[in-house]
Amino acid sequence: MPETPRVPRTRDSETTKARLLQAATDEFAAHGVAGARIDRIGAAAGVNKAQIYTYFGDKDQLFNIVMDTHVARILDQVPFTPADLPGYSGRLFDFLIANPHQLRLATWNRLERPGHGPGPLQLAASMRQKTAAITQAQADGEVPKTFTAEDLLTFVLALAGAWTPSSAMTSAGLDATELHSHRAAVVEAVRRLVTDHEPSAPTST
Amino acid sequence: MPETPRVPRTRDSETTKARLLQAATDEFAAHGVAGARIDRIGAAAGVNKAQIYTYFGDKDQLFNIVMDTHVARILDQVPFTPADLPGYSGRLFDFLIANPHQLRLATWNRLERPGHGPGPLQLAASMRQKTAAITQAQADGEVPKTFTAEDLLTFVLALAGAWTPSSAMTSAGLDATELHSHRAAVVEAVRRLVTDHEPSAPTST
Repeated sequence: MPETPRVPRTRDSETTKARLLQAATDEFAAHGVAGARIDRIGAAAGVNKAQIYTYFGDKDQLFNIVMDTHVARILDQVPFTPADLPGYSGRLFDFLIANPHQLRLATWNRLERPGHGPGPLQLAASMRQKTAAITQAQADGEVPKTFTAEDLLTFVLALAGAWTPSSAMTSAGLDATELHSHRAAVVEAVRRLVTDHEPSAPTST
Repeated sequence: MPETPRVPRTRDSETTKARLLQAATDEFAAHGVAGARIDRIGAAAGVNKAQIYTYFGDKDQLFNIVMDTHVARILDQVPFTPADLPGYSGRLFDFLIANPHQLRLATWNRLERPGHGPGPLQLAASMRQKTAAITQAQADGEVPKTFTAEDLLTFVLALAGAWTPSSAMTSAGLDATELHSHRAAVVEAVRRLVTDHEPSAPTST
């Protein structure tokens, strides 16, 4: 019988950290920063409280790490395509529907920590990079300059997230057909923002 | 010397209620429902805790009353004009910038109480009425049917609120020039959603 390979200690701690990050994600998404309890995170991950502080620092630092981990994940899974913002908004819509935690974390962050010291670094960097990418696409003639890059990015994110479970309209769940229809509407809305057309004059027939 | 008119008791209690609602608004906007403390609301309004429960019931009920009061206020100050959604989005933008509490309350409500029993009644009623008004405007030919009334309302609200202090882009304050520019962008974005134009084919010259 083959010997069970000994998992090295560093591997153990990586597994523990991953488990802690998952538990922290669930806790922060449900209760926000103020409402989150390090005890509950520890209990859910089967890790003692002291170990959490050793790995991640205090609750605020842990929240920043959770946010940054999710920002990295979204960047990885939903590549930003400045020259195809309608396509991006559709893929972001899919991601946000499939990962309701994502927008809840971002929303707690905005509600609970306006101007509250250094926020999640990846999040700020990601917004800057996206804005710069749109500006470049505008300079290259791929995106009209009707809107500034900042406005365009803000609108695309607002529209892509408008139908997510933590948005204004949906407390109840949406079925697949409804989702499909809302997704198409989001893509069409964004398409209209990046279409360089003459405003249609009222036609008199 | 004229006698000071005796303020009737009902008047007193109306003043107290108004003071309590203001204190509750500040407390809920800052801390959300879970984080709000009835003691702090009482202290800020100079009213004892028992009186709050007598007037408004428990913390959840008080939150619903605060939300409904604000919904009534916004309906009063920003009349919904389904046939002029761009104009509405601009006026709503102004209101949300001038009243940052408004969107914070609505956001806490969505984050903390998804599917959490009876929510603020006025809020749900207001969304239904707006949706019905857009449907009617579409039937009357005042608004194109490109988007469903639900999608259109959701997008208008998302765009009008996209630049408010609790939105993704702005943790720092915006100056008057920036606000003016973002407001114009919001109005133009909504105009594009309700403009009935042929999709522009790529023109080859």
